[in-house]
Amino acid sequence: MAKRDDRPHVVILGGGFGGLAAARALRRAPVRVTLVDRQNHHLFQPLLYQVATSALSAPDIAAPLRKLLRRQQNARVLMADALDLDPDARTVTLDDGELRYDYLVLATGMKNNYFGHDEWEEHAPGLKTLREALDIRARVLRAYEAAERETDRAHQRELLTFVVIGAGPTGVEMAGALAEIAHRTLARDFDGFDPVKDARVVLVEGGPRVLPSFTEESSRAARAELEELGVEVRTGTRVGSVDAYGVTLGDAERIEAGTVVWAAGLKASSLTAKLGCPLDRAGRVEVAPDCTVPGRPEVFVLGDLLALEQDGKPLPGVAQTALQSGAFAAEQIENDVLGYPRRARFVYRDKGSMATIGRARAVAEVGSASFGGFLAWMLWVFIHLVFLVDFRNRVAVLLEWAYAYVSWQRSARVIVDAPQRRRPRRERARILASALEARDAPSDQQPG
Amino acid sequence: MAKRDDRPHVVILGGGFGGLAAARALRRAPVRVTLVDRQNHHLFQPLLYQVATSALSAPDIAAPLRKLLRRQQNARVLMADALDLDPDARTVTLDDGELRYDYLVLATGMKNNYFGHDEWEEHAPGLKTLREALDIRARVLRAYEAAERETDRAHQRELLTFVVIGAGPTGVEMAGALAEIAHRTLARDFDGFDPVKDARVVLVEGGPRVLPSFTEESSRAARAELEELGVEVRTGTRVGSVDAYGVTLGDAERIEAGTVVWAAGLKASSLTAKLGCPLDRAGRVEVAPDCTVPGRPEVFVLGDLLALEQDGKPLPGVAQTALQSGAFAAEQIENDVLGYPRRARFVYRDKGSMATIGRARAVAEVGSASFGGFLAWMLWVFIHLVFLVDFRNRVAVLLEWAYAYVSWQRSARVIVDAPQRRRPRRERARILASALEARDAPSDQQPG
Repeated sequence: MAKRDDRPHVVILGGGFGGLAAARALRRAPVRVTLVDRQNHHLFQPLLYQVATSALSAPDIAAPLRKLLRRQQNARVLMADALDLDPDARTVTLDDGELRYDYLVLATGMKNNYFGHDEWEEHAPGLKTLREALDIRARVLRAYEAAERETDRAHQRELLTFVVIGAGPTGVEMAGALAEIAHRTLARDFDGFDPVKDARVVLVEGGPRVLPSFTEESSRAARAELEELGVEVRTGTRVGSVDAYGVTLGDAERIEAGTVVWAAGLKASSLTAKLGCPLDRAGRVEVAPDCTVPGRPEVFVLGDLLALEQDGKPLPGVAQTALQSGAFAAEQIENDVLGYPRRARFVYRDKGSMATIGRARAVAEVGSASFGGFLAWMLWVFIHLVFLVDFRNRVAVLLEWAYAYVSWQRSARVIVDAPQRRRPRRERARILASALEARDAPSDQQPG
Repeated sequence: MAKRDDRPHVVILGGGFGGLAAARALRRAPVRVTLVDRQNHHLFQPLLYQVATSALSAPDIAAPLRKLLRRQQNARVLMADALDLDPDARTVTLDDGELRYDYLVLATGMKNNYFGHDEWEEHAPGLKTLREALDIRARVLRAYEAAERETDRAHQRELLTFVVIGAGPTGVEMAGALAEIAHRTLARDFDGFDPVKDARVVLVEGGPRVLPSFTEESSRAARAELEELGVEVRTGTRVGSVDAYGVTLGDAERIEAGTVVWAAGLKASSLTAKLGCPLDRAGRVEVAPDCTVPGRPEVFVLGDLLALEQDGKPLPGVAQTALQSGAFAAEQIENDVLGYPRRARFVYRDKGSMATIGRARAVAEVGSASFGGFLAWMLWVFIHLVFLVDFRNRVAVLLEWAYAYVSWQRSARVIVDAPQRRRPRRERARILASALEARDAPSDQQPG
């Protein structure tokens, strides 16, 4: 124990792609590592929408951090909430204690951004945690169940309308999966309506095209695939308000919807504000080229939290950025501790990007090549299986996908929570009236 | 549609083993069937403890009722809460409507019974729904995580103490699994303590032996297996009170425990009281020999809800009773509708009983034979896989078990919910004082 206390203490906040990569890359360094996460698991975020759409169960895409780092002698895991940090005193305040660090790695990632309208969250959950994914799953499945019991035709159509706000990869994947649920999975399951005809999936995007970070060609291909699946794609459309009965679009249009999903924006977790250095509009940290906080070479920032440009473009908020910056930060810390010089800058290598739209449909961009269809989908499947962190998850997800491919079914059509009471109808008029009011006085912080 | 309305309407309340068996057995009968359940899934209850102990994920043991009955033309599924029933008017009141029936099949099963101490439920959840199983899973995993951060040794031991109340099959299986988690799954995962030495699993039973419904030989074998796994077995011990910090046993002993699980008793769901006929102490229906309510040949009662003796012994509350009485009720209804005579009495065929205690440990009784060890465990595995209702579940569970068998790991070590605040220490003294008071004035309705 005495020996262990002499080694420099590296505190990593966050067990996502970045934090876990940093912890693992430090396995042979003469340091002691403490990885802190408020959850007990590493979450494979790119597949979270599949938990929300009943294709996978929660444990399929989550692995206990403690299990992942069990064999690493110099690392320990703490499940705790990091409430505060003091870069001068080099301490982190947890919900039940304090940690002193020699090196701090901030990898807490992003949270949903409602652009000043936090009251929308209740009606339009985002997709960042397992809890949110299971909440969306329950909302979708309950909407179909309520529609089966509904005799008022207009209200039934409302229950069967699903709106996804934001057409980045998550929004596109979510909308494609919701359309497949309506037109395939549940096609023959109801007596009171026909899911194929009566369900409606609307994808709303403020910008001019879906998948804005992809090439125009990929955007066009993705849009065509979505429309073929039956998704109504509404680009160039801003959201004016969200309430318990649907959304009001900026152009004065009203869509009554039983389920609304928020995939429109993210902001940095609030700890970045404690670093005492400049942040960008979304709260990301304006780091030095080596991912450290300016003037604090002992504090590294990873992944989505980086406000850093390369070749004139900001680093993308994807898993690769987190993985590569995590490994880079670990290397710098090890160099420091061993007395070697650090590297001056972090160089991100773009390995391409991809999004899946549905069964056997995807778009992929690797280098200057961009392609779609079945080949892109197979590549997507392969890459996602390879990057799943735990062998057990890899096998489970492969089998679920194989089953879904041959059966068109979804394995996790299970509502875990107790039945939710339906929203009282009498509140409806009041809420709609205030939605119309809000539309007439739009905020200038509109989601994209 | 007009034709369909002429057929007699069979309303089945509850989609467990009994209700689902009845619905399926009516598939060729000239009736229309409405199956009502408050959940959207059929739950394979015998494996619920494996969800609670992180061995299986929730969707592994649940299958959507709608999917199970999709191909049955004469059946529809409603996800709804049955609030009331009126046997004179032949109506069932749902949370958002009313159903009229020609035949009613009551298969709503049992709920946890705290013997007049409903305030214990918060501290000692039972094991009847997926929600409860996930709640217990989160409590167990969180207790280990909190122990890792705890520096007060006495409080750490409290967090690592797990009490299971009631030693029927569920309690025995739960205690065995908790011991395996401590001594195998998590054995090397913590730095602040040694799970093998510091974790304590206590099984409390009011009666003289574990598995009271089994033979004395099986009870002895089960107890030996439990003790070999490291479970403290406390038979002949009544529970005086349960609070946020542990349990007080009837003999004035106090066990401080971070996690308490209730497996001590069940009572009938409250709808049985609306039948206007005699019930037994646990609310079960004192039916005629053909499982109907006396004087109401159109109302059938199934499974756990039956207060019916055969050969001087009450029918056991197991899956077989539910399955057999469900098929029997369906046969009687079909006979009625087709103009054939009914059978006079339901005859239960005992196909044996079994309980598993851990990896490769179980006891089984078939006819007059009783045996244990690996053979009983293999039989248990086989029977449970065969009776899992959906092909997809069967494959998933088989693979999870194969993985667990070779790796000693548990696949679903995932806490889904947001972190729970720890209980404030200042309330501790007050709660302990009132626990001591309660002990001095024991209720005469003690749990078994």
